[in-house]
Amino acid sequence: MGINFFRRDDRDIKFVIKEHNSLDKILSYTAYQDFTVEDMDMVIDESLKVGREVMGPANQDGDRIGAVYNDGVVTLPKSFHECAEVMRENGWWAVSNSPEFGGQGLPQIVGGMVLEIFCGANLNVMAYPGLTVGAGRLVENHGTDEDKALFVEKMYTGVWGGTMCLTEPDAGSDVGWLRTRAVPDPDSGDPRVFKIEGSKCFISAGEHDLCENIIHLLLARIEGAMPGTKGISLFIVPKIWVNPDGSLGEPNDVRCTGIEKKMGIHGSATASLSFGENGKCRGILLGEPHSGMPKMFQMMNESRLGVGLQGHAVAASAYDTARIYAKERIQGPPFTDRRGDRVPIIKHEDVRRMLMNLKAGTEGMRALCARTFFLLDVAEKDPNEETRRNAERQVELLTPVVKSYCADLGYELTRDAIQVLGGVGYCAEFPVEQYARDAKIASVYEGTNYIQAVDLIGRKMNMQGGRVFQEYMEMIMDFVAANREDADFAADVKLLDEATGGTMAFAQKFAEYFMGGKPQMIPLYATRFLDNLGEVMIGHLMLEQGLISRKRLAEVKADSADGIFYRGKIETAKYFCRNMLTRVFGRLATFQTEDTSALDIPEEAF
Amino acid sequence: MGINFFRRDDRDIKFVIKEHNSLDKILSYTAYQDFTVEDMDMVIDESLKVGREVMGPANQDGDRIGAVYNDGVVTLPKSFHECAEVMRENGWWAVSNSPEFGGQGLPQIVGGMVLEIFCGANLNVMAYPGLTVGAGRLVENHGTDEDKALFVEKMYTGVWGGTMCLTEPDAGSDVGWLRTRAVPDPDSGDPRVFKIEGSKCFISAGEHDLCENIIHLLLARIEGAMPGTKGISLFIVPKIWVNPDGSLGEPNDVRCTGIEKKMGIHGSATASLSFGENGKCRGILLGEPHSGMPKMFQMMNESRLGVGLQGHAVAASAYDTARIYAKERIQGPPFTDRRGDRVPIIKHEDVRRMLMNLKAGTEGMRALCARTFFLLDVAEKDPNEETRRNAERQVELLTPVVKSYCADLGYELTRDAIQVLGGVGYCAEFPVEQYARDAKIASVYEGTNYIQAVDLIGRKMNMQGGRVFQEYMEMIMDFVAANREDADFAADVKLLDEATGGTMAFAQKFAEYFMGGKPQMIPLYATRFLDNLGEVMIGHLMLEQGLISRKRLAEVKADSADGIFYRGKIETAKYFCRNMLTRVFGRLATFQTEDTSALDIPEEAF
Repeated sequence: MGINFFRRDDRDIKFVIKEHNSLDKILSYTAYQDFTVEDMDMVIDESLKVGREVMGPANQDGDRIGAVYNDGVVTLPKSFHECAEVMRENGWWAVSNSPEFGGQGLPQIVGGMVLEIFCGANLNVMAYPGLTVGAGRLVENHGTDEDKALFVEKMYTGVWGGTMCLTEPDAGSDVGWLRTRAVPDPDSGDPRVFKIEGSKCFISAGEHDLCENIIHLLLARIEGAMPGTKGISLFIVPKIWVNPDGSLGEPNDVRCTGIEKKMGIHGSATASLSFGENGKCRGILLGEPHSGMPKMFQMMNESRLGVGLQGHAVAASAYDTARIYAKERIQGPPFTDRRGDRVPIIKHEDVRRMLMNLKAGTEGMRALCARTFFLLDVAEKDPNEETRRNAERQVELLTPVVKSYCADLGYELTRDAIQVLGGVGYCAEFPVEQYARDAKIASVYEGTNYIQAVDLIGRKMNMQGGRVFQEYMEMIMDFVAANREDADFAADVKLLDEATGGTMAFAQKFAEYFMGGKPQMIPLYATRFLDNLGEVMIGHLMLEQGLISRKRLAEVKADSADGIFYRGKIETAKYFCRNMLTRVFGRLATFQTEDTSALDIPEEAF
Repeated sequence: MGINFFRRDDRDIKFVIKEHNSLDKILSYTAYQDFTVEDMDMVIDESLKVGREVMGPANQDGDRIGAVYNDGVVTLPKSFHECAEVMRENGWWAVSNSPEFGGQGLPQIVGGMVLEIFCGANLNVMAYPGLTVGAGRLVENHGTDEDKALFVEKMYTGVWGGTMCLTEPDAGSDVGWLRTRAVPDPDSGDPRVFKIEGSKCFISAGEHDLCENIIHLLLARIEGAMPGTKGISLFIVPKIWVNPDGSLGEPNDVRCTGIEKKMGIHGSATASLSFGENGKCRGILLGEPHSGMPKMFQMMNESRLGVGLQGHAVAASAYDTARIYAKERIQGPPFTDRRGDRVPIIKHEDVRRMLMNLKAGTEGMRALCARTFFLLDVAEKDPNEETRRNAERQVELLTPVVKSYCADLGYELTRDAIQVLGGVGYCAEFPVEQYARDAKIASVYEGTNYIQAVDLIGRKMNMQGGRVFQEYMEMIMDFVAANREDADFAADVKLLDEATGGTMAFAQKFAEYFMGGKPQMIPLYATRFLDNLGEVMIGHLMLEQGLISRKRLAEVKADSADGIFYRGKIETAKYFCRNMLTRVFGRLATFQTEDTSALDIPEEAF
């Protein structure tokens, strides 16, 4: 066991669940009507306890012992087994999944915050339940009753693990190129059983010893199917074959050929898997043939929200370490009183600026994630179909932004945390350097950030002829119009106004480029557009939080714990708008140049 | 031996030495008149060969074997010993130092580029000569003839190593707090010999087995001296005592008590040292008593330039890996031809953007570093005293910018390199994740980046009543005025104009805040001001390079190697101005808000 640095506070988490978003509305839905607000508070309190007492203490083991590969077998640290055991015993393995199959059935917004807590405490160990529930949900949504009965409960309760097997050595971002083959199994009476043959790589949680079986959800091409993504089918491929009665059968000819050595997430095994080396690997077709990609996309979209949340969660833990350190570490007098006493470095203005980057950045990401999970609850459970549909489309719009923006900002903020600690921040004595190394994965897996940006512009912004995007922007502009003259936030609302207007004009330009024969401008500027949109969306949410906090502040004593919290929220909203949202203007200045030098330069000049 | 990824090209390095800066002028100085331009080319070619054949192959050893501590002894990888041997044999240990004491005596601008090459090939091993020559130069500048004879040549030729011992557990950025004591040695006839007692930490190259002795340059307080930085003296403290005849004497009661486990630079030993545990540690006072800090500052200033160069050098190596990978890695068709063939990813617009970030960023940093080293040559060797003085002050102005801006941008760019490689960029198979981990140190050591920013604003910008800064800015504005209507770069010159004007207004504001009772605004905005200034300075240099390249392009075939290089330089200058210099405008938008939320927020809200 290493040192436990996990110290998340519950206050802002409860604020986003209960004050910024309407938990009452969510709890009014039939599926959640047995839950009370107090229950949800207790869930957060309990998950913080698990984070502090179980997951946090295992975090350094993940990094320092890590996943160990030996001849096809991957061994995880002992403390990871203890985490898994606690998650299994207390229903933490699948927090927002159907109780019908053993999930805890929490509202998404609460489940999302629990995931923030767990990933913030121990990102590495969370790979295992994270992939499992995503795979389990695919089976729940697309499997036959038999499939569901065989697999889903075992997965939601953490008895078995799960994975998604997409990538191959020669098919990374370009999934359509995959070569793994499936042929009908001549020895099986069941037409849904196929023989599988191929190699997959970069499979998170692809092999480990936390669970007695691992259920791989694998993409393969049925022999004779068309090339590209339209000829890809999805298969359930258990590591150990599952008999019709649910008992474990023979090993299924799936071999782990190695795991990657990585910058971080050493405890999250990134496996290379070989299927059917001995011609004995069987898979069960999930859903119709050749329908694998849309199904996998569904799982990927869920996972992408999870990855954005990871970027945020790790950065929030880095913030926790930095703020606590800054209050304790005594160094020289402040700039404005050079002959004064030595003070805790939190009194140094530049340290304060970095802490505010961390606070505003992580609270902004939390606001964005929580709003998305809230909309997911509406999309899944609201009685009104149109309300559900609208929320669903908003979630689709938000997903690439959550994934990409939080991945990048999360990594960037870990840098500030290292810097607050100075020399010791670079050393393994404190956890921030591990957080930096762990956080970087988020921009790479589940589709690189560029893939998110193209998804945003090419697919999501065109939904309903652009109406979904338009409506989201109009909601922000309505907010601007309503608060333009606000006594406290007028300057911030003005910044949001300009940033939103500029970003919408930027979006308009994309349409012109596309029609006007300059489509290359879209991929050239896509990631920067996404960053702008992320900052505009968060700026809006932070100002919403600022207004709510001001109202609450009037109802409490300014020096009470709540009073200090709300005063902090108000300043944080201002800080975000005035110091982080302003990055939009740098990008807009770039965009106005319509620069194409990156494309005009001869390739040989690189 | 690990895999060697070092692949630096010589072309831009020779461009900054010979075309952007005037090597002819430097070689006209008496000290360098025996060198020809061809000699300098050969030095670069040779150092690239050493980088490729000796230092590069040892780079992974530094990371994976690293420095190993065992009971007071630090062992370095075998390949590091080979690097040291080659450096010693061929005069690479002290490239720009006095030939009188065994240095190679190269002009600073050439020596600087050699250091870029070596640090880019193997940052870890370069810690050892890097610290040695800095310490050696202190002895050369301030020692008695006897000190010089005893120590300097042994250090410049790498027989002995050297360090600078400042930091103590309780005195990090706040050096004046140090507790290491010195008392006159009653057993020595020499009044310059003192007994030393104290502990130092974070000592780079503080203990290792590359050299037969290590000469520590140590800050301590002579008993009875005043507290704070004005009571600090500088001592030569050899690990093994050196007898008056130059032979090695007894071990000098200096014990290494451990080395840090770090995010990166595992091969660069960061030692904790205990001096005089048994009352037997002796040091020789260097220069006058209580004059330690200014002397150490001189060494730090040199080291700070070196650290900025490190940030650049590592990022440039990350760029090399990324550009080569992007030309070889085949993935899906480009965005603008979705049904087309798969292509190398360098044809993907977003990859191209990231490569341009890397190219423009690293060439920009190289331009800034090279100009600074050029000015250092002028400052040291120009026959005209006023010319020397002016150049020296410009170097002083540039130093914190080089250190801080290149440290931060270098780290930031390694992120782009990881992203170009995608999943494999996160894995240890390729070197970019090591580059990211190694690069981060630059913003932390030799004074955090905030310390640089305060040095810039508090000290450097006030030199000569502000005249040095003013003249530098006027030089840029003169450039703007002369090129406002340029056929190719008018848009870029306009951006530079606006960025420079805004940044100068920002500087003016600092003066107002200082006089107007708001001094806290200075530390709150200092690091962002420094970033602005860095981008303005680099924007100017990149446009100078663009103009030179256009002129040269007219003299060569467009498709020749030189033609492609110059066309690339022109696009790179545009890219920097239009995509990186524009970040200035985001910061200016922040500055205009005069936001103080980071200071207004209650401390308990963190």
